[in-house]
Amino acid sequence: MKISELSAATGVSVPTLKYYLREGLLPHGTAQSATQSTYAATHVERVRLIRALVAGANLSIADTKAVTTALDNPPTSWHELLGSAQQAIRPAVTRSAAPAGTPAADALVRDLGWQVEDCSPAREALEAALEQVSSGGVAVSEQGLKAYAAAMADVAAVDVDSVPTDSPEAAVRQVILGNVLVEPVLAALRRLAQEDLSSRRSR
Amino acid sequence: MKISELSAATGVSVPTLKYYLREGLLPHGTAQSATQSTYAATHVERVRLIRALVAGANLSIADTKAVTTALDNPPTSWHELLGSAQQAIRPAVTRSAAPAGTPAADALVRDLGWQVEDCSPAREALEAALEQVSSGGVAVSEQGLKAYAAAMADVAAVDVDSVPTDSPEAAVRQVILGNVLVEPVLAALRRLAQEDLSSRRSR
Repeated sequence: MKISELSAATGVSVPTLKYYLREGLLPHGTAQSATQSTYAATHVERVRLIRALVAGANLSIADTKAVTTALDNPPTSWHELLGSAQQAIRPAVTRSAAPAGTPAADALVRDLGWQVEDCSPAREALEAALEQVSSGGVAVSEQGLKAYAAAMADVAAVDVDSVPTDSPEAAVRQVILGNVLVEPVLAALRRLAQEDLSSRRSR
Repeated sequence: MKISELSAATGVSVPTLKYYLREGLLPHGTAQSATQSTYAATHVERVRLIRALVAGANLSIADTKAVTTALDNPPTSWHELLGSAQQAIRPAVTRSAAPAGTPAADALVRDLGWQVEDCSPAREALEAALEQVSSGGVAVSEQGLKAYAAAMADVAAVDVDSVPTDSPEAAVRQVILGNVLVEPVLAALRRLAQEDLSSRRSR
């Protein structure tokens, strides 16, 4: 199909598609002449993915490119794949200061007996998030934190079971998009569950 | 204390403090003369809260103002308070189209037997998030979604138990900041739990 047809199939304007091509998010089509290329069904799928990441998951163009790069170069093991996916979608870490003593995240991970790399970006993200909670004056007890961890282990079991094993591309897609796009689902479920609980208790 | 002392106590520059005053995020101090006001310990606490929301939770100035307005006008019941907190921090809803038939979120809430208002912003947020998951091509089974909901009910129980009952201001603070600031904690725990599971399974 021509770029105008790719635009019609995806609802994304031609100038935006050209921008994705220039930025390397969207692979080039097959050249038909000096000014025309043809695009395939894989391009339609890729454009939908880019839209989901940019408009749906609110990723920057740079982070979206990290995702498409991981898709174009899938790692060989599930464990590596998870690492590259987590790198691509690591949250911006804003640490206020170097922590004194053993960081709270490391202590929690050790108490839980979780097997995670020392250099895992999620470990640093947890430390930064706990610092924000504490500097915001939010009370989270140690017991509450462990209950949060147990609940997220239940969530992670669903996540890991949802990853297809037939193709690395499909797996990368599920890991990255699953993490990014399911997060707002979890946030909304959390608020609905709070409302349900509060409604039952206020009776 | 003078505004320069408020700045020293909070690490926020005087021009930024004046900006917060102009925007109505920070209540004015007690006027001492035409050009000088004095500020109290409550101002220090409020500035720390604003920083936690703006820098920590990445809220816009408008959303931060919604939070401080809720703090300055606390509602009378826990249930109303939760509603106003959820309004202040409702996620930006980007619905692609009006859904046909019964929305997936409504069906899920009904299946779960959760008691939530028809007009709850979290209900619409869930519907929008589920649409993004589906348009992103992420596979989430009905069973997986119910497991997510059960895990988030566990999270919500911790949330509701953490809300102090002695002061409405403290309760609003905990509800709003707890929702906003704990979200990155949950996201990081989810990724660590995925890494732990994948590490155990790849042995």
